[in-house]
Amino acid sequence: MKLLEQRILSEGELLSGNVIKVGGFLNHQIDVGLLLEMGREVKRLFAGEKITKLLTVEASGIAVATAYGAVMGLPVLFAKKHGTSNLSGQMLYAPTHSYTHNVDYNMVVERRYLSPCDRVLVVDDFLANGQALCSLCSLVEQAGATLVGCTVAIEKGFQSGGRMLRERGVRVESIAVIDRIEDGKIIFRD
Amino acid sequence: MKLLEQRILSEGELLSGNVIKVGGFLNHQIDVGLLLEMGREVKRLFAGEKITKLLTVEASGIAVATAYGAVMGLPVLFAKKHGTSNLSGQMLYAPTHSYTHNVDYNMVVERRYLSPCDRVLVVDDFLANGQALCSLCSLVEQAGATLVGCTVAIEKGFQSGGRMLRERGVRVESIAVIDRIEDGKIIFRD
Repeated sequence: MKLLEQRILSEGELLSGNVIKVGGFLNHQIDVGLLLEMGREVKRLFAGEKITKLLTVEASGIAVATAYGAVMGLPVLFAKKHGTSNLSGQMLYAPTHSYTHNVDYNMVVERRYLSPCDRVLVVDDFLANGQALCSLCSLVEQAGATLVGCTVAIEKGFQSGGRMLRERGVRVESIAVIDRIEDGKIIFRD
Repeated sequence: MKLLEQRILSEGELLSGNVIKVGGFLNHQIDVGLLLEMGREVKRLFAGEKITKLLTVEASGIAVATAYGAVMGLPVLFAKKHGTSNLSGQMLYAPTHSYTHNVDYNMVVERRYLSPCDRVLVVDDFLANGQALCSLCSLVEQAGATLVGCTVAIEKGFQSGGRMLRERGVRVESIAVIDRIEDGKIIFRD
């Protein structure tokens, strides 16, 4: 989506380790209007898929998924990164690794909120190595629900996550795909 | 707001230690339509206040603030609970304590996203001891921005946070206030 690409070019910052900082509009400060526009695009892309629920993971995925839920008229379920005192009942777990924080952890959702009747769209802000999306897909599978696909705001096309998921047959729709970073410049995939 | 009170009564669960579990619609699975309704109420309550930004803290505050941002046409800034590799520049810190997770931590925001020109409404899902809201207010103050007030979905009126903030002169608007829990029943304040 041109609108998102333009924002990445005008406000994104390249930090060391190919970290693309978009904290001005996506994952620290949130331009809710932009997220609603992205939600309209996602609604169009997945029209007819009879999605019943959006699934994401805390923290920054929550903003994206909530805006999409507002546009698509859908509830959001967010996986937690830690058990807390306000979870109860039977849980589903999926081990994962965060490259941003360099830690292993278990994503957890309460089983009662994902049922075999659900048709789930997995939502996140970034796709790089695909660890978070794979774990979210595993939660959908463990619940016996149907995985409609995954959508992320920004895919780093030069990392392996997108290819790995598509090779497994998962539909992945990224609102912007960064093909490569060349001489400190961001080049999008057509 | 009656709509929220009804949902708390019909779906809320009382866990030990006066934990009120509302994971079915507020802080695990999210009923985005309900949050948008709450946003309309908050917009009405703070009409004329010329708010420029909503400030919350990860994780479950993000859903509430994003829905309010959609209704009010405002950007959201969420404080992080840990420094991460995608924060940069000058930071503002506020020490706090989470009773839910029983840990001390520093809330952090990048200074560039809160300016003296901002008129900030602090948003969160719960108000109990008021630790999180106090720390968010401290971030607003450190930035030299104007604190318009605080709004939470559910205030536990039998804990001290709401009184403490109001005694300091902070405007606090809670969408539902639980006055007390009596014989395992939730009683709302009028």
